[in-house]
Amino acid sequence: MTAPMIHILNGPNLNLLGQREPEIYGAETLADVERLCAERAAGLGLATALFQSNHEGEIVEMIHRARSEAAGIIINPAAYTHTSVAILDALNAFDGPVLEVHISNVHKRESFRHHSYVSARAEGVIAGFGIQGYDLAVQRMAVLLG
Amino acid sequence: MTAPMIHILNGPNLNLLGQREPEIYGAETLADVERLCAERAAGLGLATALFQSNHEGEIVEMIHRARSEAAGIIINPAAYTHTSVAILDALNAFDGPVLEVHISNVHKRESFRHHSYVSARAEGVIAGFGIQGYDLAVQRMAVLLG
Amino acid sequence: MTAPMIHILNGPNLNLLGQREPEIYGAETLADVERLCAERAAGLGLATALFQSNHEGEIVEMIHRARSEAAGIIINPAAYTHTSVAILDALNAFDGPVLEVHISNVHKRESFRHHSYVSARAEGVIAGFGIQGYDLAVQRMAVLLG
Amino acid sequence: MTAPMIHILNGPNLNLLGQREPEIYGAETLADVERLCAERAAGLGLATALFQSNHEGEIVEMIHRARSEAAGIIINPAAYTHTSVAILDALNAFDGPVLEVHISNVHKRESFRHHSYVSARAEGVIAGFGIQGYDLAVQRMAVLLG
Amino acid sequence: MTAPMIHILNGPNLNLLGQREPEIYGAETLADVERLCAERAAGLGLATALFQSNHEGEIVEMIHRARSEAAGIIINPAAYTHTSVAILDALNAFDGPVLEVHISNVHKRESFRHHSYVSARAEGVIAGFGIQGYDLAVQRMAVLLG
Amino acid sequence: MTAPMIHILNGPNLNLLGQREPEIYGAETLADVERLCAERAAGLGLATALFQSNHEGEIVEMIHRARSEAAGIIINPAAYTHTSVAILDALNAFDGPVLEVHISNVHKRESFRHHSYVSARAEGVIAGFGIQGYDLAVQRMAVLLG
Amino acid sequence: MTAPMIHILNGPNLNLLGQREPEIYGAETLADVERLCAERAAGLGLATALFQSNHEGEIVEMIHRARSEAAGIIINPAAYTHTSVAILDALNAFDGPVLEVHISNVHKRESFRHHSYVSARAEGVIAGFGIQGYDLAVQRMAVLLG
Amino acid sequence: MTAPMIHILNGPNLNLLGQREPEIYGAETLADVERLCAERAAGLGLATALFQSNHEGEIVEMIHRARSEAAGIIINPAAYTHTSVAILDALNAFDGPVLEVHISNVHKRESFRHHSYVSARAEGVIAGFGIQGYDLAVQRMAVLLG
Amino acid sequence: MTAPMIHILNGPNLNLLGQREPEIYGAETLADVERLCAERAAGLGLATALFQSNHEGEIVEMIHRARSEAAGIIINPAAYTHTSVAILDALNAFDGPVLEVHISNVHKRESFRHHSYVSARAEGVIAGFGIQGYDLAVQRMAVLLG
Amino acid sequence: MTAPMIHILNGPNLNLLGQREPEIYGAETLADVERLCAERAAGLGLATALFQSNHEGEIVEMIHRARSEAAGIIINPAAYTHTSVAILDALNAFDGPVLEVHISNVHKRESFRHHSYVSARAEGVIAGFGIQGYDLAVQRMAVLLG
Amino acid sequence: MTAPMIHILNGPNLNLLGQREPEIYGAETLADVERLCAERAAGLGLATALFQSNHEGEIVEMIHRARSEAAGIIINPAAYTHTSVAILDALNAFDGPVLEVHISNVHKRESFRHHSYVSARAEGVIAGFGIQGYDLAVQRMAVLLG
Amino acid sequence: MTAPMIHILNGPNLNLLGQREPEIYGAETLADVERLCAERAAGLGLATALFQSNHEGEIVEMIHRARSEAAGIIINPAAYTHTSVAILDALNAFDGPVLEVHISNVHKRESFRHHSYVSARAEGVIAGFGIQGYDLAVQRMAVLLG
Repeated sequence: MTAPMIHILNGPNLNLLGQREPEIYGAETLADVERLCAERAAGLGLATALFQSNHEGEIVEMIHRARSEAAGIIINPAAYTHTSVAILDALNAFDGPVLEVHISNVHKRESFRHHSYVSARAEGVIAGFGIQGYDLAVQRMAVLLG
Repeated sequence: MTAPMIHILNGPNLNLLGQREPEIYGAETLADVERLCAERAAGLGLATALFQSNHEGEIVEMIHRARSEAAGIIINPAAYTHTSVAILDALNAFDGPVLEVHISNVHKRESFRHHSYVSARAEGVIAGFGIQGYDLAVQRMAVLLG
Repeated sequence: MTAPMIHILNGPNLNLLGQREPEIYGAETLADVERLCAERAAGLGLATALFQSNHEGEIVEMIHRARSEAAGIIINPAAYTHTSVAILDALNAFDGPVLEVHISNVHKRESFRHHSYVSARAEGVIAGFGIQGYDLAVQRMAVLLG
Repeated sequence: MTAPMIHILNGPNLNLLGQREPEIYGAETLADVERLCAERAAGLGLATALFQSNHEGEIVEMIHRARSEAAGIIINPAAYTHTSVAILDALNAFDGPVLEVHISNVHKRESFRHHSYVSARAEGVIAGFGIQGYDLAVQRMAVLLG
Repeated sequence: MTAPMIHILNGPNLNLLGQREPEIYGAETLADVERLCAERAAGLGLATALFQSNHEGEIVEMIHRARSEAAGIIINPAAYTHTSVAILDALNAFDGPVLEVHISNVHKRESFRHHSYVSARAEGVIAGFGIQGYDLAVQRMAVLLG
Repeated sequence: MTAPMIHILNGPNLNLLGQREPEIYGAETLADVERLCAERAAGLGLATALFQSNHEGEIVEMIHRARSEAAGIIINPAAYTHTSVAILDALNAFDGPVLEVHISNVHKRESFRHHSYVSARAEGVIAGFGIQGYDLAVQRMAVLLG
Repeated sequence: MTAPMIHILNGPNLNLLGQREPEIYGAETLADVERLCAERAAGLGLATALFQSNHEGEIVEMIHRARSEAAGIIINPAAYTHTSVAILDALNAFDGPVLEVHISNVHKRESFRHHSYVSARAEGVIAGFGIQGYDLAVQRMAVLLG
Repeated sequence: MTAPMIHILNGPNLNLLGQREPEIYGAETLADVERLCAERAAGLGLATALFQSNHEGEIVEMIHRARSEAAGIIINPAAYTHTSVAILDALNAFDGPVLEVHISNVHKRESFRHHSYVSARAEGVIAGFGIQGYDLAVQRMAVLLG
Repeated sequence: MTAPMIHILNGPNLNLLGQREPEIYGAETLADVERLCAERAAGLGLATALFQSNHEGEIVEMIHRARSEAAGIIINPAAYTHTSVAILDALNAFDGPVLEVHISNVHKRESFRHHSYVSARAEGVIAGFGIQGYDLAVQRMAVLLG
Repeated sequence: MTAPMIHILNGPNLNLLGQREPEIYGAETLADVERLCAERAAGLGLATALFQSNHEGEIVEMIHRARSEAAGIIINPAAYTHTSVAILDALNAFDGPVLEVHISNVHKRESFRHHSYVSARAEGVIAGFGIQGYDLAVQRMAVLLG
Repeated sequence: MTAPMIHILNGPNLNLLGQREPEIYGAETLADVERLCAERAAGLGLATALFQSNHEGEIVEMIHRARSEAAGIIINPAAYTHTSVAILDALNAFDGPVLEVHISNVHKRESFRHHSYVSARAEGVIAGFGIQGYDLAVQRMAVLLG
Repeated sequence: MTAPMIHILNGPNLNLLGQREPEIYGAETLADVERLCAERAAGLGLATALFQSNHEGEIVEMIHRARSEAAGIIINPAAYTHTSVAILDALNAFDGPVLEVHISNVHKRESFRHHSYVSARAEGVIAGFGIQGYDLAVQRMAVLLG
């Protein structure tokens, strides 16, 4: 039996993780996130695949693909958190659980970062836990998919 | 003499039409929309071409193309209805009539779906008529282009 | 078997249709609307009856009457669209489908015309299609009552 | 000596009481309200007369009439609660006590039902007590007129 | 040659003028207003006719009648000032000058009295001049019609 | 068979009832309220117990206690009406009917008194009926528990 | 016996009257206003003195001076209408009647022109009557001072 | 060497966890939370102590106590999340890391639950992960205190 | 003759004064405040008693006690300034003068600190004068009670 | 050694102090304020100079002058408190401490008086202490300059 | 032929340029601005004259003077940008082009600096280019006047 | 030594420059902009490269590329100015100076064009200077990079 698959989707500018504004986002890279998630998932009988795009439309399509390929989605929509109804609509077309991750505590930053379209769809939201937030979301997903 | 061409543009997630949230959007697909429009148009001496994209930028460029290829535009901007100034600006650069179609009655849903940037440019708006809305918009276009 | 009846209700100032502000509302009259609807309805195996009133209370009572006399309502509440909870409440007491028609594109006009109490109840809304909007609403009603 | 008279005024759609949306408004009719009030009033040495209209202007004129005919007014302005300054102004021209009744708990419904123009004038407001609210208002009126 | 006719339209509760809230509206009656206007108009070569209604729909229809019978309209919409789009729409269908009169200074009262739908159409607005405001509006109308 | 029990909960400053701001709250005391409710309840086959606290947390705990001891709650949350989500949450954990009482007409006072967190949970709300409001609420409770 | 004095105060840019934006403000000058007021006042047994300043502080001081020299003030605060609390405070220190005049109908212009600090103090407001508004205000002042 | 201590503070109504609204909060109790946290903490070389109060003031004082007794705070302020500046101020007086936990996804509920005073102070926020959120917060605390 | 008594009431977290956020609140303690006030009061023929609580309900009850024991109240409601209607209501039940003190300049901090429920009741407000604000308030109280 | 100089700046209409609205501002004059401040200052080893202007620009320039002549500024900006960014900018160019004084409790008056541009710059604010507020501000200044 | 004249108008506190808040406004003075503009203008066949005032009324009058003396206006209204309708009205009476300059990037500062009354009239706006913004505005003016 | 490179980034619909809405955007094309910038840059010892995209994600990636290839960015985000947090975040990851250019004066157009996410990051903003705005921005960049 194959392990249930979790897609870990990352929004714009996260390809720069570890390079941009490290005082906000830390020094670890998206490759570190990928490794962290894979290890945790393996220990829980799950598999993960990580994607990143700077394009709203591509993230929409990643979610479409997850409809047939993934049991659950962990998503860090980054800037599109606050502006994308298209991603919300795509997630509404996904049947499995969705968890939303933000590396920084968005509630401490500019007020336009306090609102998330995605939160209206996600089962849970984690913000300000650094990249460890991904690890914890994988643990949660194991319960939701259990 | 060739029949006047109408471009029928569709926004994000409409490629899933018939599959996602059928209680909201119904069971028919975009191919059904395409056939419906083509038939109606033929009967009215018009031609139609249907396009869909999940990318805001591609929809902008579809509209640019319509400037030379189409006499009118019927557009269902889907989620971009509520968030895209770029599509509005592109439509402002189009000289022919524009009709806006929504399959569901957006006015009955979340409040962020009550505002449309496109409505400020469109000649008319039709919402909540299911995919029949496209058929009716083609009929209207025949009058506007008549 | 008698044809299903559609009541076509029209709000304040629509008795002046064709006379007032023709650059916004066009040159056709309410009698033209009546004929247009009757013809379309006949072709679809439906009957229509058109009413107009400048009085909010009379429109409420027209809707009450439709409870026993009509299978569906097409309503252009005109100015009462934006101010009448009473009409909304009356429509909530009507069991059949309701379609909302506006001759002009209200979304392009003053901001107080952007909100409609009736849209929260109507199955669909059509605005800016001129008096053709009534014709198209009859077509939709044929499907909804079909 | 004649019993002090209380006018019990009812706004739009209340003629349908018992028929429309019974899950919100219950199954009893306005005739039941009338009987309930008359009985309670008789027991308290008061008389009642019940009126209903779907017309804002008629309700204004009912209040004008009450200026000479009634010692107190119990009013359920229904939809006009939220939209009628004219009824407020008429009540401001009435010298006796005014009590406002709503059958449903308006505070649990759409946000536009949370504001009442009439509450700024009424001595008291009762909402969500079903038609028993009228009975209780008559009891209160007995004290206010006592 | 007949004198140009001015219709002087009065909204809800103004039939009680002189009786209700005299500390706000003064002790003079609508008959006094009528006489005042007629006298001033006569001196200026004009004629006046005064109407009052508590019904929004009737005021709409008074304005419709004025389309063929009056050269100008002086209107005190009273409570409907703040709530009636229907009256605004009717006035938009009238070609002559419109002056708006309020007996009290509405700007000193509740905030919902600070907004007037009618002001967006009227040539001028006069508030807080008591019933003398009508007299002054007639003088202005003489200039506008001169 | 024991009579169904109603808990009558009173919020901050109501221990001063009869002493503070009598022009707003009247001259009767909380002991008068207690007697009034007990008498009315006895006549209806019910029992009442009245509690008061100035502490939000104690009111939360009174509601917790009511979960096992009371069939219904009549609550005058006083100042906490407008500021306490904790009391709302506690009431959401109570299964029986809840009625909300305010001695004064809160809708005529400062605007921050126009909103009630509790109204979103209560079956009914009564305001501005003086301490008689408690009596009437007991009558309503008899019906709801009947 | 000397005639009661009315000070006619004019705010910024009114020195350009007749020159600036004549489509809004007309072609007559402040000297025309002065003559118009003086003539009307003389006929009513009153005297007038007209002042203009572009300086908020000077208008404040003109009002201070009026405390001992004038029985009433007619003021067109122009742009300071919308921004000056200082002028409002000065008028609050004046005991006689105050009338506010605007040459154009400010309610038809930008929304920031819809609010007037001065209206909260003035007995009456007249807008959109051209410079005739001054004449009419003098007539009203004659009544208020009579 | 003693293990670093984490205080786990819980706000109003959480003593009912497992009993109230299980469709929102689940069936596990606060004792389950306590055990879960203690086990996780032990495995990470940490100690935990769990407290609950329905009183805002007591939670303030629990935080004061944590100043000398705890290295970090995990807090689920429940209803006080949205209304308590006092708890925010107390946390501002605590030097160690603070993590905020909500069992349900507050962003999917009433809009007044979308704002948290505590988030402005917390290092991270986790919502909608059920009681597993506490476990994950302990894991994060181990990193923050590491 | 005994000296008039002033109660000096202090809200949540002020027990930490001198310890928490000294860059905002300074290094002096509440004991210093007590001494400062007592000395100033003695020199002015007054007596003071200082109280502090972290509990909203206790502060309400402190104010109730002051009704019989104090001639005036100086209150620093701290966080409850911005959230407590209960304290406002309690102060409304107090007959003597009330002065409001804030150690920091709340107007320079987060916007939710700009609004005070207590200011609507207090004779005066002093903010940003450090603990000297208490001393100055005692001086003012001497005048108000003089 | 010369005493440190404090400039005491007063805004519009304060030249009328003692004459205008004495129920709000009291019966004492600006000369009384000047004497009061001078006496207090002398006792504390300070000197004061008092200025008043009705002109926003002059107050700006008084602040410019204070840059070289004064160690601290006590300012009662009166009406300009609520409308002048220019005064705020001038104070931002002053290096010494600034204290803001209002004679009346502005928080109890119209809502537009609740906001102060100056408070964003001032070290402290005192309102509603009558002219004694100036005396107390001088005492504070002695500490700040000490 | 004389060179077209540009008036360069500067608002309050700009006389302190180079002295106040140099981290925001830089170290150069208004004399430097004057020289910079004159040199650039000379090279483009234009002349410039620079004025500064701290008085709103004087700036209004400078603009009046420019009506006959200048072909174009470059204005840095400083604090009056955000509060002066009078300056906007004066500019509306000027026929030539208007350019608005801000030395700092006002959009990065307090939110009240984000709105400009003048921008509604100016052809263009430049902010955050330091005093070089004046130089660039002169270049633009050369094109506009060319 | 190579000349410092400036990237000139252009948002959606700017590929149509010169063709769309010439009354707003003028008749010159993006090629004209490119030539203009290159010439100006060359004269200042700088190099420029111009890019345009209709895709938000591509503009994000253009900015990423500029991190290693450009010393400064001049950006006209067009419609994305008002809707893109992703572009703001990308610019926050760029270390050099950023200047924002708008061809038209966005402050004179629809209110949704008055807000710019990019302005919070840009050193300076220039709007309404036509394509000359690019030229002036290059001049400013020369100073910033100098």
